[in-house]
Amino acid sequence: MTKGKLFVISAPSGCGKGTILSEVLKNNKNLFFSVSATTRSPRDGETEGVNYYYITEEEFKREIDNGGMLEYTQYCGHYYGTPKKKVIDKLEQGIDVILEIETIGAMQVKKAMNEAILIFILPPSVPELRRRLNKRGTEKPDVIEKRISEAVDEIKRSYNYDYVMMNDELEVSIKDLEAILTASKLTIDNNKNMIGEVLENA
Amino acid sequence: MTKGKLFVISAPSGCGKGTILSEVLKNNKNLFFSVSATTRSPRDGETEGVNYYYITEEEFKREIDNGGMLEYTQYCGHYYGTPKKKVIDKLEQGIDVILEIETIGAMQVKKAMNEAILIFILPPSVPELRRRLNKRGTEKPDVIEKRISEAVDEIKRSYNYDYVMMNDELEVSIKDLEAILTASKLTIDNNKNMIGEVLENA
Repeated sequence: MTKGKLFVISAPSGCGKGTILSEVLKNNKNLFFSVSATTRSPRDGETEGVNYYYITEEEFKREIDNGGMLEYTQYCGHYYGTPKKKVIDKLEQGIDVILEIETIGAMQVKKAMNEAILIFILPPSVPELRRRLNKRGTEKPDVIEKRISEAVDEIKRSYNYDYVMMNDELEVSIKDLEAILTASKLTIDNNKNMIGEVLENA
Repeated sequence: MTKGKLFVISAPSGCGKGTILSEVLKNNKNLFFSVSATTRSPRDGETEGVNYYYITEEEFKREIDNGGMLEYTQYCGHYYGTPKKKVIDKLEQGIDVILEIETIGAMQVKKAMNEAILIFILPPSVPELRRRLNKRGTEKPDVIEKRISEAVDEIKRSYNYDYVMMNDELEVSIKDLEAILTASKLTIDNNKNMIGEVLENA
């Protein structure tokens, strides 16, 4: 059986990654979304196993020591990471897996699993990103400027990705992401067995 | 301006390539279909500049000598080839171009333009291909067996392609081909300038 494909998607905050991804997951029932683990506490409205797996710092560090984290990072004093076992199990079952993680974690995944396909969502421009973050109205100006500066750092790392798509229009972005997922499964490296089978029964 | 992308599509006779391609061309107005040149005579219902450019053997050979053919081949005593100039002009204008040619010509294109993206359409199986060719009812059994043997040779060359898709259901195949075209434009190599522009205005 053909193994599943591992996709990693990253985007600065405010690029619409969540919306694009939830639409694509709705349309692709065979795509498994990997839920991250974190040591931070659940926020209002968040659900264990949906938004994150909430674990203690002790548990998280034990997982790191046991090689159980595919990637991890620290942010604002908390750990965030991808539990490895579930990802590997799904891939072995022939199911495609998608991780939604930041760029440093994405580089770790690519190093561990070179066949992973990295997809970056760009904002149309940095001023537009600032406009979108301001529009949300949930964050103070200094927090927004911090997000912008982080976004610029993330965009700089996008040169290491396999695909880059700009989220200008949501409908186009959904189609773009689906096209990347579909095309990645049609590459020659993925289909040599299929050619062999067609020839065998000739 | 970003240059257009060159796509080459090949498939054994009876794989439904023509139908898939005409649907995809209908949906993608920015995709230019390159019409081949041939030295054979027009058949009933064929139109100059639509099915082929019909030229004399002398003209064809002159084009070869002048380096004016991107690829060419001989089949049943006639020449078939892709006039280079129009393809190059369209690519320079930022327009994507698609060639529908057989596998030996495709290898020539890849050699001349390594950035060309080669797509092969597989039949679900060789017995199914035979069934489809028989169903057409236009060819005698020995001609069909010749087509099958050519198909097997072509399928063997598909290992050199970038993408392989199986035409089992037409609707799926149309989506597959469109996904390949879309995703090919979203690769990092195609979009480094875009990242640069987003960062420049940060």
